[in-house]
Amino acid sequence: MEQQKIVISGERVRATLEQFANFGRTENNGVTRLALSEEDRLARDYFCSCCKALEMSVEIDDMGNIYATLAGLEDQPPLVIGSHLDSVKKGGRFDGVLGVVAGLEVARALVENKIKPRIPLVIANMTNEEGARFEPSMMASGVLSGKFDKALMIKKKDVNGITFEEALHSIGYAGKEESRIKEAAAFLELHIEQGPILEKESLSIGVVECVLGMVCYEIQVTGESDHAGTTPMGMRKDALFAANNSISEARQKLSALDKELVFTMGRMNILPNIHTVIPNKVVFSLEARHKDPSVIKQVEEIILGLKQSSGHEGCEIQTEKLWDRKTVFFDQKICALLERSARSLNYSYKRMVSGAGHDAQFLASYLPAAMIFVPSIRGKSHCEEELTNWEDCAKGVNVLLETVLSF
Amino acid sequence: MEQQKIVISGERVRATLEQFANFGRTENNGVTRLALSEEDRLARDYFCSCCKALEMSVEIDDMGNIYATLAGLEDQPPLVIGSHLDSVKKGGRFDGVLGVVAGLEVARALVENKIKPRIPLVIANMTNEEGARFEPSMMASGVLSGKFDKALMIKKKDVNGITFEEALHSIGYAGKEESRIKEAAAFLELHIEQGPILEKESLSIGVVECVLGMVCYEIQVTGESDHAGTTPMGMRKDALFAANNSISEARQKLSALDKELVFTMGRMNILPNIHTVIPNKVVFSLEARHKDPSVIKQVEEIILGLKQSSGHEGCEIQTEKLWDRKTVFFDQKICALLERSARSLNYSYKRMVSGAGHDAQFLASYLPAAMIFVPSIRGKSHCEEELTNWEDCAKGVNVLLETVLSF
Repeated sequence: MEQQKIVISGERVRATLEQFANFGRTENNGVTRLALSEEDRLARDYFCSCCKALEMSVEIDDMGNIYATLAGLEDQPPLVIGSHLDSVKKGGRFDGVLGVVAGLEVARALVENKIKPRIPLVIANMTNEEGARFEPSMMASGVLSGKFDKALMIKKKDVNGITFEEALHSIGYAGKEESRIKEAAAFLELHIEQGPILEKESLSIGVVECVLGMVCYEIQVTGESDHAGTTPMGMRKDALFAANNSISEARQKLSALDKELVFTMGRMNILPNIHTVIPNKVVFSLEARHKDPSVIKQVEEIILGLKQSSGHEGCEIQTEKLWDRKTVFFDQKICALLERSARSLNYSYKRMVSGAGHDAQFLASYLPAAMIFVPSIRGKSHCEEELTNWEDCAKGVNVLLETVLSF
Repeated sequence: MEQQKIVISGERVRATLEQFANFGRTENNGVTRLALSEEDRLARDYFCSCCKALEMSVEIDDMGNIYATLAGLEDQPPLVIGSHLDSVKKGGRFDGVLGVVAGLEVARALVENKIKPRIPLVIANMTNEEGARFEPSMMASGVLSGKFDKALMIKKKDVNGITFEEALHSIGYAGKEESRIKEAAAFLELHIEQGPILEKESLSIGVVECVLGMVCYEIQVTGESDHAGTTPMGMRKDALFAANNSISEARQKLSALDKELVFTMGRMNILPNIHTVIPNKVVFSLEARHKDPSVIKQVEEIILGLKQSSGHEGCEIQTEKLWDRKTVFFDQKICALLERSARSLNYSYKRMVSGAGHDAQFLASYLPAAMIFVPSIRGKSHCEEELTNWEDCAKGVNVLLETVLSF
């Protein structure tokens, strides 16, 4: 006979999340908790004190990542639940911290119910996932997985010229390289969806199969600045008109490629940006994300084709690839386990993809990793309006607890 | 029998223009001589010393305009030749200063040839035509003609918080309101074309019939910011896509209106302007210029119609008229005189319009005013590459001299 399930309540998850939201809470009930800031230090200290209260051992590695370990019956590679405590400027109360709070509530549930897990349980807080203070994002998991060079990363400066390394020391979280996580039975990250799909489909849990591959280009249109009042239309080389044509063409062609493709021109700068002067330069970003590398390849062909197409208005068009990343598939066995946990709890769920990047995608290169999502109201994230129902937060935590118990 | 013409040489005009270009010359042979700056003071001082050397009397009015008078045989309202000594940042050696140098060279030619004009000749330097340091442009002529309120204008601040009034006093050019120019037989302004037409048509002189009327709108597109990676295309309210559609529609409709219409979207700002975030706001300017008010009216109907058209991508579009100005027609008798002078000198010329604003257009409200243009190489102005052949500069000066002699 199956024993009665331990279920963590929404109220409990709410209370813990709100505790963390006090570290950097903004006037509109969001959070500003930049990596390695005083607010981050307070949140870290509170997290460590909560873990120590559960008699967990706490270690810090050289990138400031925190690992709190609840000993298991067997001395095996641990099951890790983790995410990040840092936020963007004027971000929300859920992004990142939910995945750390999940680990904490799972550990509490085990300790309170006097359940000693078979293998150790580690709660991990990864440093500087957002990259909002020190670029790039996912910095620490990038260093751990060998994607980023540590020597370069620790010299990255914030807008005030303070390096990552200095900030790490000043908040007292510079640990040892030996403490880095090297192996795990699984790395599980619970995160808010940051998109509208689960809410729209009235589902509680998303089992994330992969993080979408992407490519980001910068397109530079060079025309000629002339006086807006004295230059006949036929004698202009208006970079904005040419950029407008390129954007229309790219939209039309990209829209026809694949219905799951997402693409965005999020950044665009016009020079000299004076109402009485014909623009001589327009620079815009074009990024696109899709699971299938062959679709991304077609995207790149379309972008490169912009140089040859008509509608240049006498301007020159240059394209530069800023970066790309391949689709990262999560561990299919772990995905299946998470799915089984959701099913056993009678939570509605679906398999889905992540359009956003997460630490789990870097760690997946050397740990069996997987993620679950819970719904974001109106798909909002990285803003003060970011919201997930407490019950949905708790459902995500319970899927993790169920998965831990199944190990 | 007609007496032999006095003709001012290109070399002479070059020498004087280059003297003035020393006051604020940039490393690329342009000029930065912002209104009421130290460079402006030096240019003004030099101008006054040149005039005094010709025994001209110099007066300064309360807006810092300088009037140097060569006495006439009759005590009649003067013939005024004028323009401005200020420049934009990294502007050229011709814009404005050419019209002042023209007056100086005409006065020198008269004095050297011992010709005392029938009516007085005044050379005027109008303060802050460019508006590059203190907005708006044509500030002093605007105050003189009652378009701008003096009390407001003198409190205008530069980027360092210095007011027009403070700057005027600090360079020692604050004069008396009584000294303002009140009447004239004519106000003549020689200026570079700042457009490509004369050069393209291989003409030396443009007799300017009018300054085009214009209208300037700001169009604001409001969408919704969401994560570029997690928001399906069909669930976006992308303000850049909507703005792109509006620009295409406006271009198409405005292009069909009238072939002489010029229109420009010179300023455009995207928010939040981050490559990974769907833009939630795009604000762009749309200004259009045409001689005929009925065409401008149709332009406004097209702009206002953008709010109702399709292609909004779920975004909201607002339009705001920032300002307009009516077409200013110059004095037709003076235009005819200038034309006759060009003809008598065997210079090629045409009647044309000015798409750019000039002090003469404000002064035209109470003085019989007119302008002539000389060719701008490649139509360039407000930049260091601004160039007019010395011979063309001299031709412009000679048209003015011929016109003075004809009075």
